[in-house]
Amino acid sequence: MKIFKKEKTIRCKLKDHGYDIIVGIKNLHTVGQAVARVTKGAHVMIVTNEKVGACYLRVVSASLKRAGYKVMHHTVPDGERAKSEKELFRLLGVLAENRFDRQSTLVALGGGVVGDLTGFAASIFMRGITFVNIPTSLLAQVDSAIGGKTAINLTYGKNLVGTFYQPKLVFVDVATIETLPQKEIINGSAEVIKYGMVFDEVFFSFLEDHVKALCDLDLPIIEKIVTKCIHYKVKVVEQDEREAGLRAVLNYGHTFGHALEAIGRYRTISHGIGVGLGMYAAARCAHQLGMFDQDSLDDLAQLIAAAGLPCSVKPFCKDTKKLIAYMQSDKKVVDQKIRLVLPTEIGTVVIRDDIPNIQLRKAYEF
Amino acid sequence: MKIFKKEKTIRCKLKDHGYDIIVGIKNLHTVGQAVARVTKGAHVMIVTNEKVGACYLRVVSASLKRAGYKVMHHTVPDGERAKSEKELFRLLGVLAENRFDRQSTLVALGGGVVGDLTGFAASIFMRGITFVNIPTSLLAQVDSAIGGKTAINLTYGKNLVGTFYQPKLVFVDVATIETLPQKEIINGSAEVIKYGMVFDEVFFSFLEDHVKALCDLDLPIIEKIVTKCIHYKVKVVEQDEREAGLRAVLNYGHTFGHALEAIGRYRTISHGIGVGLGMYAAARCAHQLGMFDQDSLDDLAQLIAAAGLPCSVKPFCKDTKKLIAYMQSDKKVVDQKIRLVLPTEIGTVVIRDDIPNIQLRKAYEF
Repeated sequence: MKIFKKEKTIRCKLKDHGYDIIVGIKNLHTVGQAVARVTKGAHVMIVTNEKVGACYLRVVSASLKRAGYKVMHHTVPDGERAKSEKELFRLLGVLAENRFDRQSTLVALGGGVVGDLTGFAASIFMRGITFVNIPTSLLAQVDSAIGGKTAINLTYGKNLVGTFYQPKLVFVDVATIETLPQKEIINGSAEVIKYGMVFDEVFFSFLEDHVKALCDLDLPIIEKIVTKCIHYKVKVVEQDEREAGLRAVLNYGHTFGHALEAIGRYRTISHGIGVGLGMYAAARCAHQLGMFDQDSLDDLAQLIAAAGLPCSVKPFCKDTKKLIAYMQSDKKVVDQKIRLVLPTEIGTVVIRDDIPNIQLRKAYEF
Repeated sequence: MKIFKKEKTIRCKLKDHGYDIIVGIKNLHTVGQAVARVTKGAHVMIVTNEKVGACYLRVVSASLKRAGYKVMHHTVPDGERAKSEKELFRLLGVLAENRFDRQSTLVALGGGVVGDLTGFAASIFMRGITFVNIPTSLLAQVDSAIGGKTAINLTYGKNLVGTFYQPKLVFVDVATIETLPQKEIINGSAEVIKYGMVFDEVFFSFLEDHVKALCDLDLPIIEKIVTKCIHYKVKVVEQDEREAGLRAVLNYGHTFGHALEAIGRYRTISHGIGVGLGMYAAARCAHQLGMFDQDSLDDLAQLIAAAGLPCSVKPFCKDTKKLIAYMQSDKKVVDQKIRLVLPTEIGTVVIRDDIPNIQLRKAYEF
């Protein structure tokens, strides 16, 4: 119980509807009480996948039952294929069949895929029911679970269909990442490094000192890191809920990265690896333009490598022309212009949409 | 051009985003200018069906092109089957395939079905793109096009999946209802009568005097009626965008009516006929309870009949027990309680959730 006392609450204050993000270590058995503070309806559906469900469904379900809810669960396939039209409507059908009503609650228990699908379903079932997110991957805890983006994929591209829909509660137990495969920790670490690069040189230094502790699953250190990342994500979301402006800085590494993910058809290159390579490509681009110094570029490369992320695009793709074409099809493209987030120093970025394609191609050549 | 000068603009003021509702007679050729005031993106997709498209696609498309847009169109099937998962994803696929981006605009040109589907697609494509609604049926002009409700149907029920998503512009040319089949005018007149019953005894009297002009397509009278209805709908939506409270009064006639529609599997009983019968059933229910006097009940019956709406449930369904079961599965049911909007006099309603089933069954017996 000593550990549980360290639980922190970060409030995300939005115009219409703020919500709490609770962060703790081994606090999953208390989720029912937290949910009870945000929803009064009787029915809860937990959406999870087989792997996560095997580890945590029992404790979450028991906690919700103790809090007085009628609890059901629904299992979706592993991986991106869960973010499909088919899985979305299978879930919506289950809700309708079981007479879920406007007072019912959907709980996502899993990583970003489960959260994106479940949040989207919650946002459109009966025009919106209560959504609670329990992110169990590092990537989801520091990024995708915060901010209200939901989505599924179309055959034409990732996340092309979705909503902005805020959860009523995000409940983080950082101990859940103990059961993640190592590659998922590495995946999440790319987004963690991103917060340092975009917002905070001191946090970047902290990561340089503690990247090994992160990889070794030192939970108190991870709790500090996760809390810091959530803090920055919340600040941005509060100021720009619908990605009209400021929020774009969080795309640092993503425009370069998405092209790599897309070229590997989202199979050979994970989101984290894409973002890692993308952050380095964007930093190289900034360096080529004389905006970002060599030492900082080297520091970034070292931290990326220390986190276990690959540091070279070439093994994945040599056709930089094709990468530029993919960048141009990104949904953040405005009037055919590629908007890039480029670092000027560690902890500071700018947005540019005037970079010639030849510079982009060069940035990818490493 | 004399007629065009009478065009009216009603502003719907919402917290984040107000929008204009423009009402005129034979003003469709000016829609491009109106759209140009609300969106800057280059691409517009007009969504329509064959019947409406045959009448109005050319003029709308030409007007948008004159305003500088790249215009495409997409045709959906007639009737409720367009509000399906399949049609939704066919439309989303077309948008993705044609590289529609976040600055693009979706224009609905048609009745409530086209508006509901198109608005839903606009709300979820890339997490929301600009939506313009050009309602061409009386029902859509006075009701469904205003207020931001979008939806598709599941096999389990109507409108089970959708969003609250406000258009950037609603553009009404009341002359479009000249090409409607007579039964669609009758359909829309039920919602018109509803506004009188719920809000305004004087408007109810006006309708008693002008119901023939409505049926005979007297456009200046219809413009007055449509404008009045929109005025009331806007007032309610402004105060209760997400149907948390006040907006429920607009469900007058709908809980009784939906059960009839559902029992006919949405084929034998149209929405208007359902609402017409539902309003009378609700008024009978109120009368049984001593809340609503006989003269008013007779006035309502007369106006419903004069509008060409049927006045008897029996030809459609004799099994009132089954109707109650359908009422209980309505998505507005809270904690198993049926919430009813009941009139206390013409122009005033109250909400009650304590009416015994036996009274509901009796109310249906006419």
